[in-house]
Amino acid sequence: MKQQDIQLDSQGRLRHFLTIEGLKRNILTDILDTAENFSTVGTRNVKKVPLLRGKTIANLFFEPSTRTRTTFELAAKRLSADVLNINISTSSTTKGESLLDMLRNLEAMHCDMFVVRHNASGAAHFFAKHVAPHISVINGGDGSHAHPTQAMLDMFTIRRHKQDFTKLTVAIVGDILHSRVARSQIHALTTLGVPEVRVIGPQTLIPKDAAGLGVHVYHDMKEGIRDADVVIMLRLQRERMQGALLPSANEYYRTYGLSPSKLRLAKPDAIVMHPGPINRGVEIASSVADGPQSVILEQVTNGIAIRMAVMSMVLGRGPEEEAEE
Amino acid sequence: MKQQDIQLDSQGRLRHFLTIEGLKRNILTDILDTAENFSTVGTRNVKKVPLLRGKTIANLFFEPSTRTRTTFELAAKRLSADVLNINISTSSTTKGESLLDMLRNLEAMHCDMFVVRHNASGAAHFFAKHVAPHISVINGGDGSHAHPTQAMLDMFTIRRHKQDFTKLTVAIVGDILHSRVARSQIHALTTLGVPEVRVIGPQTLIPKDAAGLGVHVYHDMKEGIRDADVVIMLRLQRERMQGALLPSANEYYRTYGLSPSKLRLAKPDAIVMHPGPINRGVEIASSVADGPQSVILEQVTNGIAIRMAVMSMVLGRGPEEEAEE
Amino acid sequence: MKQQDIQLDSQGRLRHFLTIEGLKRNILTDILDTAENFSTVGTRNVKKVPLLRGKTIANLFFEPSTRTRTTFELAAKRLSADVLNINISTSSTTKGESLLDMLRNLEAMHCDMFVVRHNASGAAHFFAKHVAPHISVINGGDGSHAHPTQAMLDMFTIRRHKQDFTKLTVAIVGDILHSRVARSQIHALTTLGVPEVRVIGPQTLIPKDAAGLGVHVYHDMKEGIRDADVVIMLRLQRERMQGALLPSANEYYRTYGLSPSKLRLAKPDAIVMHPGPINRGVEIASSVADGPQSVILEQVTNGIAIRMAVMSMVLGRGPEEEAEE
Repeated sequence: MKQQDIQLDSQGRLRHFLTIEGLKRNILTDILDTAENFSTVGTRNVKKVPLLRGKTIANLFFEPSTRTRTTFELAAKRLSADVLNINISTSSTTKGESLLDMLRNLEAMHCDMFVVRHNASGAAHFFAKHVAPHISVINGGDGSHAHPTQAMLDMFTIRRHKQDFTKLTVAIVGDILHSRVARSQIHALTTLGVPEVRVIGPQTLIPKDAAGLGVHVYHDMKEGIRDADVVIMLRLQRERMQGALLPSANEYYRTYGLSPSKLRLAKPDAIVMHPGPINRGVEIASSVADGPQSVILEQVTNGIAIRMAVMSMVLGRGPEEEAEE
Repeated sequence: MKQQDIQLDSQGRLRHFLTIEGLKRNILTDILDTAENFSTVGTRNVKKVPLLRGKTIANLFFEPSTRTRTTFELAAKRLSADVLNINISTSSTTKGESLLDMLRNLEAMHCDMFVVRHNASGAAHFFAKHVAPHISVINGGDGSHAHPTQAMLDMFTIRRHKQDFTKLTVAIVGDILHSRVARSQIHALTTLGVPEVRVIGPQTLIPKDAAGLGVHVYHDMKEGIRDADVVIMLRLQRERMQGALLPSANEYYRTYGLSPSKLRLAKPDAIVMHPGPINRGVEIASSVADGPQSVILEQVTNGIAIRMAVMSMVLGRGPEEEAEE
Repeated sequence: MKQQDIQLDSQGRLRHFLTIEGLKRNILTDILDTAENFSTVGTRNVKKVPLLRGKTIANLFFEPSTRTRTTFELAAKRLSADVLNINISTSSTTKGESLLDMLRNLEAMHCDMFVVRHNASGAAHFFAKHVAPHISVINGGDGSHAHPTQAMLDMFTIRRHKQDFTKLTVAIVGDILHSRVARSQIHALTTLGVPEVRVIGPQTLIPKDAAGLGVHVYHDMKEGIRDADVVIMLRLQRERMQGALLPSANEYYRTYGLSPSKLRLAKPDAIVMHPGPINRGVEIASSVADGPQSVILEQVTNGIAIRMAVMSMVLGRGPEEEAEE
């Protein structure tokens, strides 16, 4: 697995975090366990640990995302790192500077980590392939390829509620084809041993090679959601509806939206997840999003712990080293 | 008083700071006294106290205001808090996320305080009404409703120069109708016992219920300013002049602008205030703005002490706790 | 020298850093020596010194420059200062606030230092002339006038490679006329004792008074670069080519671009410099920019040490005082 190589150092430890694909189960479990240690920081009186003090983390956001940028920034600050927010559309790329030259410049400023968000699939890998050996890259979402920290915060949330991955049925509903979140979730779920991963959506929004990913494809949501332990709703990109791929929002809700009645087909203790921001009444009913089975806001909380975990791991520091500071 | 309820905790301590209206005098005096303690921080060699270390403060600015945002950011940093600047027009509201969902998400990230600036009256109350119990909201200006930290920095400035509120005549001049600053000042002045508060402006820019606020209305500036101890000039929103509400800038200056000759009608030791930014030659003569009676820049300085005071009070920490850190 | 006066305090120490012009050699050498002390901070595990803890530094960028803003921000953070980024085009100047009023306001907030970037020549001097006595101004580039920290990082880079300035031949190639970088470099090189400074470019891009600056003018690059120890390429502003000043990018490269063959005319151990961002294939061949003689990325690294040095010097703190903190 070429991608695994680039993500791990010679001792098999995480060095970049670009994609779930190709990572072994023990790495994913390490991330979850490390995040567990960080999950109490957010509720402390002083929400700060000195692990990454004096490190410089650059948030390189080539597409805007307040939520993801904010959670990475908070994670970095709670680890005591210095954070640079670089919004690339307004930056020196307007002067025609190439991506690689920008990278070399930030390296020369002794940045320790780049968090990269880009609308082109493979952007984070491109960075990781070209950075100097002491710099780590974290993928904050690249095109329709991967969003690994999102997938890991989802796994963290599932583990907190369901403990054992090896007994679960997980249904992912929506636009699987264009979703970097779904792609990363599928890899994480299968790697962690979930025996039954289902993807549910209209034929136009399911990748043709879905079966090859080890998932079961359903076009009928009522069938697909039956007896699921976890229901993950994807955000519907409204711009898809302008093409021929999708009918109206109303019709989408009727067919693939998570209504209370459809949710009743899942297990009684099923949890409902969504990466956010949600389109109420489009892919999910408000009463479900705000209902007792929803763990959507826990996902947001867990996102900070996961990002602290990944950031500290790629820079080679675990929470157990805190005392040494 | 419904608004008082939401601003105070069960022990009557400040929990949010949304409006002056309904707050008792002792609370306002507490804020002024606390700010007095913080007012030396800005002149220390190390302008920092560790009171809010490890706290996360999110600046939610739905309308741009460099000055107010900057003073809140400085106040937070000098209290050692972590600050998130979230410019909402460029944020996920572009993805159709509702205000409430945004709020829930920031809560889930364990923010401790929101500073809210919004062009809709009531926005800060909306936030305060819906936030989780451990989160505080500070109103950084909402529509034409309130701007309580501005009013308190004005009170702080007045007290430093005039000591006893109960002997003062204060004149507020300009567009009272649309001014959140004026509204908050009037509440603060009357609560602190100022016996004579005057509002001066053309009929079109004075609220119809002005008398009910306990103020005296003047349309003739020369009459209104006579023997005042404090003259507060409001910023003229130039866009008002495009409608029928106001004559030209020149005519406005002739009628309601603070010229040296008009100022001579006030008490000889009267102070001149303005919330900034000033329109020189429109509502105030340059020679007055820069003259010996002007305390306009002191207001800016005091704004940081007031914001530090309010921030530390709503999070339940006074400067006297500094030593314990 | 009027400009010298404003930059130095009564004991001849650096108080602002606006231009190289008029500064004595010992000041420049002090900056280089101080930067030498800071140059290891970037490679430490904890890239932070507490020298400017509790100081407030405002980055006032009236024209966008990610690279320069980022290096000043990093320098300030590594000195433990609090940094305010103020993007002026989106700020209160939109409300018609004058530059001077903005300055007075930031002073009143107890900022300690302004880093000013402006497209008007003289903007930084204007600020320095009007700030309160305890505030320092650093010029981050003003119009076509000066970019003194860029020039000093270039001097730092030259000294590291060539040690003795008094034996060097330095060639600066490109649009000398419009370049604040070139202007500052020429002053720095001549002040530090470089006996032979050459400027190379088409007649339209060489200032008419070039000879008065103590440099030799060449229009033929092959002649001008011959036996140079240092070759400094300037960035070609593509917008110049839209007027009558310049031929096409291709023709420019042929005449004034640094190709491997032209570089062979310089000394065999000549170093190649560029302030960045580079236009590959326009003013410099990619193979040269990335080749063994290029020190372009070292310049970026050194830029942080230089900015830390200047920031700490104007605030009266040297690295030797670190221990006292």
